[in-house]
Amino acid sequence: MPESNHLPLGWLKGDGPEALLVLSSRLRIARNLEGYAFPHRASEVARKEIRGKVAEAGKQERSLKPMELIELEKLSLLDRQVLVEDYLVSPHHIQDPSGRGLLEQPDGTVSIMINEEDHLRLQCFLSGLDLEKGWSILNAVDDAFESHLPYAFHEQWGYLVACPTNLGTGLRASTLLHLPALTFLQAMPSLIHSLNQLGIVVRGFYGEGTVSQGHFYQVSNALSLGPTEEDIVSRVSSVTRQVITQELQARDRLVKEQRPLIEDRTWRAFAILKSAHIINSFEAMEHLSLTRLGVQLGILPPVPVGLLNEVILMTRPANLQKHFGVEPDPGKRDIARANYLRNALAI
Amino acid sequence: MPESNHLPLGWLKGDGPEALLVLSSRLRIARNLEGYAFPHRASEVARKEIRGKVAEAGKQERSLKPMELIELEKLSLLDRQVLVEDYLVSPHHIQDPSGRGLLEQPDGTVSIMINEEDHLRLQCFLSGLDLEKGWSILNAVDDAFESHLPYAFHEQWGYLVACPTNLGTGLRASTLLHLPALTFLQAMPSLIHSLNQLGIVVRGFYGEGTVSQGHFYQVSNALSLGPTEEDIVSRVSSVTRQVITQELQARDRLVKEQRPLIEDRTWRAFAILKSAHIINSFEAMEHLSLTRLGVQLGILPPVPVGLLNEVILMTRPANLQKHFGVEPDPGKRDIARANYLRNALAI
Repeated sequence: MPESNHLPLGWLKGDGPEALLVLSSRLRIARNLEGYAFPHRASEVARKEIRGKVAEAGKQERSLKPMELIELEKLSLLDRQVLVEDYLVSPHHIQDPSGRGLLEQPDGTVSIMINEEDHLRLQCFLSGLDLEKGWSILNAVDDAFESHLPYAFHEQWGYLVACPTNLGTGLRASTLLHLPALTFLQAMPSLIHSLNQLGIVVRGFYGEGTVSQGHFYQVSNALSLGPTEEDIVSRVSSVTRQVITQELQARDRLVKEQRPLIEDRTWRAFAILKSAHIINSFEAMEHLSLTRLGVQLGILPPVPVGLLNEVILMTRPANLQKHFGVEPDPGKRDIARANYLRNALAI
Repeated sequence: MPESNHLPLGWLKGDGPEALLVLSSRLRIARNLEGYAFPHRASEVARKEIRGKVAEAGKQERSLKPMELIELEKLSLLDRQVLVEDYLVSPHHIQDPSGRGLLEQPDGTVSIMINEEDHLRLQCFLSGLDLEKGWSILNAVDDAFESHLPYAFHEQWGYLVACPTNLGTGLRASTLLHLPALTFLQAMPSLIHSLNQLGIVVRGFYGEGTVSQGHFYQVSNALSLGPTEEDIVSRVSSVTRQVITQELQARDRLVKEQRPLIEDRTWRAFAILKSAHIINSFEAMEHLSLTRLGVQLGILPPVPVGLLNEVILMTRPANLQKHFGVEPDPGKRDIARANYLRNALAI
């Protein structure tokens, strides 16, 4: 069985702007090929044909960095789960893997989910808040593929897509934000409500239908029809900046009003990560979030942001199982996770 | 207002036999003076007269180390509470302090509660399991005082005392045991039941009416009438040895069957003590107990037993308030306690 061996992903390095507050910027566009049914209605044969064409287009296009095709049905379930945890594919994408695939650059900056909800979901991930740069990269990739593939396009509706919410530009721009202080002060529900009024959606750690974990939230545009791509990117970017400002104000307030409590919570979290011998992924995530906060507030020692990012993904069940050859047993995984964390944070 | 400045107490050094498992051995005898009502029925004037006679007897007796008289009504409430936390007086003893007192050697090995339930409660504290030695010390002190004071004695009933359970020898021999593994394995209720059958009482950390804290239990004889003093001492001593054996077996079993869990619990406890910035006395006690266990099992670094003992008393509310000049505010005390623990355990 072929191996997918993910991590490190480029954006995990944490070298982008505002990288402690903004884990990543992600852009995603939906495209489909003329003459084929959307993936959920296409036959397995048709899906494989589509996958072949997309991969071939990637090979022909010399302007792009080389991309590797992963055929999802050839991966083990574990390897597919690792791709989900690394944000490269959606949970939906791996449910029926036959004829579905992932075309990706080795560092994961650019990748294409093939036959997810649409034939192509082109994605770009960058560290920190860097949506404009991400869009210019993704736009070039899109142009390159369009020069080899006949995209389904309608004069009035724009790029045709499987789900109406992606009509028009088919663009979703999102940022993954770390908002512990706003969460702590219980400001998130009203913030989410007012962002919704602005056409902005706030989701959990793994997007649609997932809950917030470790005080991380995904912020993205609700619709892709109407505004131009540049408008969408600039809107999500400016909303993200506003949210960052609010989070920083909330942190100032917390430190000013409840410094001993914040010191206590962050130091305990860090100490437990460095000492536990058994820890589940939920608890690890909570402590990693508080550790991240403590580092940024200068309360804890300066753990590098790249390491803070890496541990988030590496302590996920599938990554842990994959990278440490742990048996698929939650008890053993919790021990392996604690071992990994103690070593990783022994700095 | 005169100061009582307790700690270090001799037994805290932890230099006695089995000192990690047995915090202390304590012997206590009840004596009363002829011609006076028991303290709860004596007038304040009578109590002060009694106190004066006891202190005078201590001064006259040249065979004893010098003892200091503390008149409880001259102490602040905080100083009285410190004496309780340090086991030198009972909670009952400080409730109405007028005419009551404590006569004690500077290291607290020998002391006399004056006008507690009885006119004299002579006590001896030693580190570890050392009841026989404690009895020989206390017996000599008793003889010395008896040569200067007319004890109330009855041919048939022995020393007359306020409470019938102390009739006869008036001797209570007790050990303060650390039994985390038996507690963890939920073996304590049945152990307590079978000890009761043997005429042995098991109590909490501060004796009668208190609950177990941090897995510490006080084991003592139920009655003092019938057997000789030597019988009582040897009975409590041998029961303590049996309980130690059971605790050690329980620890072996825990380590064999649940090593990762024990490593996890003990390391987390130690890490929290070394890192918390806010901690209440109950939580501190739980973690101190697990730390003590981890040290003894060789899982944690070798924290000296004297330090493990000292932190137990120093993190108590009154001691903390006294020794660090903390305001009598639980919030500030929890911060001061965490500061003290981080410093004390930064080894």
